[in-house]
Amino acid sequence: MFSEIIKNVKNNTPLVHNITNYVTVNDCANILLACGGSPIMADDIEEVEEIVSISSSLVINIGTLNSRTIESMIKAGKKANEQNIPVILDPVGVGASRLRTDTANKLLNEVKFAVVRGNISEIKALGNTNAKGAKGVDADLADSINEENLDEVVEYIKSLSEKLSSVIAVTGAIDIVSDSKKTYIIRNGHPMMGKISGTGCMLSSIIGAYCGANKDNIVDATAAAVCIIGLSGELAYEKILKNDEGTSMLRSHLIDFMSKIDDKILEEGAKFEIRQ
Amino acid sequence: MFSEIIKNVKNNTPLVHNITNYVTVNDCANILLACGGSPIMADDIEEVEEIVSISSSLVINIGTLNSRTIESMIKAGKKANEQNIPVILDPVGVGASRLRTDTANKLLNEVKFAVVRGNISEIKALGNTNAKGAKGVDADLADSINEENLDEVVEYIKSLSEKLSSVIAVTGAIDIVSDSKKTYIIRNGHPMMGKISGTGCMLSSIIGAYCGANKDNIVDATAAAVCIIGLSGELAYEKILKNDEGTSMLRSHLIDFMSKIDDKILEEGAKFEIRQ
Amino acid sequence: MFSEIIKNVKNNTPLVHNITNYVTVNDCANILLACGGSPIMADDIEEVEEIVSISSSLVINIGTLNSRTIESMIKAGKKANEQNIPVILDPVGVGASRLRTDTANKLLNEVKFAVVRGNISEIKALGNTNAKGAKGVDADLADSINEENLDEVVEYIKSLSEKLSSVIAVTGAIDIVSDSKKTYIIRNGHPMMGKISGTGCMLSSIIGAYCGANKDNIVDATAAAVCIIGLSGELAYEKILKNDEGTSMLRSHLIDFMSKIDDKILEEGAKFEIRQ
Repeated sequence: MFSEIIKNVKNNTPLVHNITNYVTVNDCANILLACGGSPIMADDIEEVEEIVSISSSLVINIGTLNSRTIESMIKAGKKANEQNIPVILDPVGVGASRLRTDTANKLLNEVKFAVVRGNISEIKALGNTNAKGAKGVDADLADSINEENLDEVVEYIKSLSEKLSSVIAVTGAIDIVSDSKKTYIIRNGHPMMGKISGTGCMLSSIIGAYCGANKDNIVDATAAAVCIIGLSGELAYEKILKNDEGTSMLRSHLIDFMSKIDDKILEEGAKFEIRQ
Repeated sequence: MFSEIIKNVKNNTPLVHNITNYVTVNDCANILLACGGSPIMADDIEEVEEIVSISSSLVINIGTLNSRTIESMIKAGKKANEQNIPVILDPVGVGASRLRTDTANKLLNEVKFAVVRGNISEIKALGNTNAKGAKGVDADLADSINEENLDEVVEYIKSLSEKLSSVIAVTGAIDIVSDSKKTYIIRNGHPMMGKISGTGCMLSSIIGAYCGANKDNIVDATAAAVCIIGLSGELAYEKILKNDEGTSMLRSHLIDFMSKIDDKILEEGAKFEIRQ
Repeated sequence: MFSEIIKNVKNNTPLVHNITNYVTVNDCANILLACGGSPIMADDIEEVEEIVSISSSLVINIGTLNSRTIESMIKAGKKANEQNIPVILDPVGVGASRLRTDTANKLLNEVKFAVVRGNISEIKALGNTNAKGAKGVDADLADSINEENLDEVVEYIKSLSEKLSSVIAVTGAIDIVSDSKKTYIIRNGHPMMGKISGTGCMLSSIIGAYCGANKDNIVDATAAAVCIIGLSGELAYEKILKNDEGTSMLRSHLIDFMSKIDDKILEEGAKFEIRQ
């Protein structure tokens, strides 16, 4: 199912322009290389339009946003839209400060995002913004996804996806990817991935690579990226258990497995159902 | 002795707001997760007050300071003081430039620090600033701590701690933690830790987590953090010797051990004496 | 041949001032420590002159340049020139945007570089700038170096080296280091090093350490640095093959080997020829 998507990534080496935070940027660069893409990081307003124009996709991550980079994000996003280059938003920490919420709002209003990826708290905070009329979406949900509230969260994500006209990817104990018509419920991953800084950011960058190489198939490409990082995390967890290691080696093994998983391993290891 | 302190960290998952350098920030984030805390990095002046208000502690590290972030440090520090949130200062490279010395001075004059952590050169440079009358403190000391000058350095640290009304943690071949009344002499750690970038920065972030979860016991919490990173370094060194590895794996193992050490391992491995 | 160069690094612990990107800066810091140097990162215009004045060399890397840091690069570079401190340029991505090309141009016109290091595309883009009359240099070359075009590339590099009055180090499948009179052809390294972010940046920082400790022997010091990182990469590749690991561990092992290779291992493993 995901074979074609993965082959497109490996054969095309999509260049992914990241305007991202300085905390996890190195992991994003390395996992992009590991998955078969190529990273470029550039955030100066004088060059972001040129850089995004030679790229296959743009990933905007607001993890350590500041007044200088916010303007670059918007300028790059608009240019990408003009050129039909998919743009991914990772609204890190939206809801934690007025600046983050306002910035997410501004980005959603001025840029068309192919994919928005966050945890359930972040996605809920987005749903409560005024962006594109998202405000009306009911966000009275718990801050985690489990078997009990899964149906309710799926409906929420579908509804938000429709309002924002974006694929929404929400990650947690269970992951959901939806374009409002087609919804993936994904059960890859391991809880210990939450003990590494940057698994979310890395996923957003991988989604950039997968969508950049599969522009006509955004929802499936996003689901494939969610499955492959989850599977890498599972394999990495098995390895640290076997070797009696800890969280730092979990990250190393996760990136290692990302560099080694091919379409066959993914077909066997991907755990998802599709609701239509 | 440190059991209660460690349990408080693991049970409360203190959120640590870091305004820090872009060199070692990823290691700080990962070691905070490994020790049981939770990291948030935010340095824009528009959001630092909100971010620090939801945090358990604030760590200010001047490793790659610039005019934009200096203002954010002061604003965040003042807000933390208002809300009784402990603030930790890591005056990286103070003394190496006028900008660093002036910034440290300004920070010490405008913000009350629960803990100041540095190596002996940095702590001496602080003692030579005009901050809070620290100028008068005699700083005619060598640039390393050893058994010969230990008593002299202890007296210096106690005196500086009193002048700055902060716990001082000075790290080197021997570590000293003092609130002027109670002084820990700590002999954990391994010299090869100096061959990894960021052991000092990581320690300052861990002190943030430990103090954030133990606000009424700052001196003991700081000493526990110094012991645990030293012990992690010792165990990591044993592992690279056994596996014939080098400095990069020393860092990985150090973070791994940080994620695995519990209060019992720390009780057995901590090497300190208390002078009162 | 390189023994003296390596001993000078290990005995003098050269302090290397890096004004560099936030993507690979941590790897640069750690590999500097691993190779026997000492890193300092500082980019605020208020302090770069003081910091470079206490340093053994300056490395300017434009990977994530912005208007603030460009000014700091120029100011630091001029100060280094005044004090006879070698300056290394890594023109990351030059040619990909007007800002990068203009910045490289400005740097080449205002600062004297001891060494310029890049891949063949970057070096060609530099050759096409107006800097110091480099424009006239014929750059009708392929974007890779191989046995077929080697002689042609060598002539190009020699010519550019003469125009810029800098040692040029161009890295790829085959590496070339030339001061126009003496040219090293180096065949260390492994293609998988291209799957790690930052091998180029790390090399530029190591060149900083090697030149800082060998100011009168820039071309040989640069060649030694190119050989040692290539050899570290080869040994790291053998290790990941043996352990069935991936790209993240390749980076860890590369830094590990850098911390362990001595002059004897380098003498045995260095693969180069000299053309004069």
